[in-house]
Amino acid sequence: MDGEIRQNKATKEWVIFAPSRGQRPHDFQQTGRTRAPLPAIDPQCPFCPGNEDQLPAILQESPGDGQRPWLTRIVPNRYPVLTPDGSTERRLEGIYVTMRGYGRHEVIIESPRHDDDIATMPTADVATLIETYHQRFMHWRGDERNVLIQIFRNHGTRAGASLVHPASQLITTGIIPRYIRWRELEARLYFDEWGRCVYCDILESEAQDRRRVVLENASFLAFVPYAADVPFETWIVPKRHCSDFGQTTPAERADLADALHDLLARLARQLHDPDYNYIINSASRLSNEPQNHWYVRVRPRLTTRAGFEIGTGIRINPSVPEADAAYLREEAGGAGG
Amino acid sequence: MDGEIRQNKATKEWVIFAPSRGQRPHDFQQTGRTRAPLPAIDPQCPFCPGNEDQLPAILQESPGDGQRPWLTRIVPNRYPVLTPDGSTERRLEGIYVTMRGYGRHEVIIESPRHDDDIATMPTADVATLIETYHQRFMHWRGDERNVLIQIFRNHGTRAGASLVHPASQLITTGIIPRYIRWRELEARLYFDEWGRCVYCDILESEAQDRRRVVLENASFLAFVPYAADVPFETWIVPKRHCSDFGQTTPAERADLADALHDLLARLARQLHDPDYNYIINSASRLSNEPQNHWYVRVRPRLTTRAGFEIGTGIRINPSVPEADAAYLREEAGGAGG
Repeated sequence: MDGEIRQNKATKEWVIFAPSRGQRPHDFQQTGRTRAPLPAIDPQCPFCPGNEDQLPAILQESPGDGQRPWLTRIVPNRYPVLTPDGSTERRLEGIYVTMRGYGRHEVIIESPRHDDDIATMPTADVATLIETYHQRFMHWRGDERNVLIQIFRNHGTRAGASLVHPASQLITTGIIPRYIRWRELEARLYFDEWGRCVYCDILESEAQDRRRVVLENASFLAFVPYAADVPFETWIVPKRHCSDFGQTTPAERADLADALHDLLARLARQLHDPDYNYIINSASRLSNEPQNHWYVRVRPRLTTRAGFEIGTGIRINPSVPEADAAYLREEAGGAGG
Repeated sequence: MDGEIRQNKATKEWVIFAPSRGQRPHDFQQTGRTRAPLPAIDPQCPFCPGNEDQLPAILQESPGDGQRPWLTRIVPNRYPVLTPDGSTERRLEGIYVTMRGYGRHEVIIESPRHDDDIATMPTADVATLIETYHQRFMHWRGDERNVLIQIFRNHGTRAGASLVHPASQLITTGIIPRYIRWRELEARLYFDEWGRCVYCDILESEAQDRRRVVLENASFLAFVPYAADVPFETWIVPKRHCSDFGQTTPAERADLADALHDLLARLARQLHDPDYNYIINSASRLSNEPQNHWYVRVRPRLTTRAGFEIGTGIRINPSVPEADAAYLREEAGGAGG
């Protein structure tokens, strides 16, 4: 499929596929790198039990079993990128526009264990983490200054993680950036043309086609998108149309925990624990319209954006989405198996 | 300036500045890394003299002095991402849009010396390289299928370079991606509102302000943009309003060689030869309107995009543009001096 350019149906972004530059799926395995084995507790780690004084919890989930000091903890980010006493009032500085930006920046510590990982922890603990996400998302949703609430995870240094203790982050902003405006605009244009949600149409198509599906449960379909930006990019999309992560049901959140756990375990097994980011894309407050559809975007960091990609915004993907998905399905005799 | 959000005047993108997460300018020096010393010729390198048969030249610049086999060579990319026999005709694949994309992909070998570098080679050789860029740009400009012609350079593995022999690349496409559409649309909206080119206004403002200026010559001003995406990002902007790199004069191209050489030498000295990309942004054929303004964007690769940045398109820059510029001016007593 060299030279094929596919269009992301949801955003109209183009992706060039150049698999002859790349390799077969298993060639993306991160074999050249070893992660140092981690202790269960690192006394130097600010997120580890024993150091709770350094970062007082905003919210803490207590275990039922009494075995562990806590399950999840939300703490302030020590180097917040935005500040609660900022605003969205623009100032002129010469000819330029600037603001002292309003926003929140918190860390969600996922486990007391320094060496824990979503891919290997019990699903019940992943479910607790998703509930913590949801609780905090709802909290900030209640303050209308937060027009955007982004929950995301950076796993490994190539994904921008600075600490190894398992943690996610939550950032809220008072502005909607161009990138999100465009995504929501495209969803609106599609809705106006077809009277349907573009993500629902993608979901239906992928569920029928099956070639790009990685896994499925009662509430979610996880698939490599047709115009995946990067090798093994996977979207976990709720089957029920809903624009807002905050409006998920408890059953959906339990199913999300299952799907996320399963997907990350597959990535870890099949690609040898690659660095990755995931992001919960939920509609912005200013565009919480019926045509938006929340989902989780998982993006392994296996390739590097170079000059052409930075200059044009066109991604070059050296893999084949259908082969990536088959490899993550771990089928005997699959394309990369 | 923690928590300050600046808007890119040309594109309306927001950048969050968080210098307390970062460091003073000299802390961005790439001291942890050493590049292996290179031989003047590597017999294994397909770009080195002696291996010309492997990649027959499309165009070759001969030296006047007879000392060197050639000065620059343009060769086909061995793994082209696009193909000359593609087209812009869209096909449907299920519900999705795809095409067998038309495009050209060439490598511009910058020097016969394996260990050469723009930062250290004689300015006359950089001038030859810029002339080679221009010659090839004009060649592809003559074929109207090339609606976008992108010349760029990837320096170092963090910038996506796979070979060390000094080389740039040229890619043409038959499509205009969303990212470029948006940039050109913003320039048009600005022109319609103010009757002026936004880049001319930025240039004038920076030339007066001086705080973000890195260097200047008769034809160019090089400065760290007010809302720089990344630490030490620098734009080399022609003083004469012109949308098209193809329409530069020989004197301007000689001045560009001087400016590029000087800037890359400063980056190499002050940051210890960081990885970087540069891109020549020239107006697309479909939007070659009076309000566009070509320029060179140099982007060191010192930081990593993490989940928030991927999810929102908002960049977090842990440096201060004014301090970055002062550091590159190498002023005694400068902010990073």
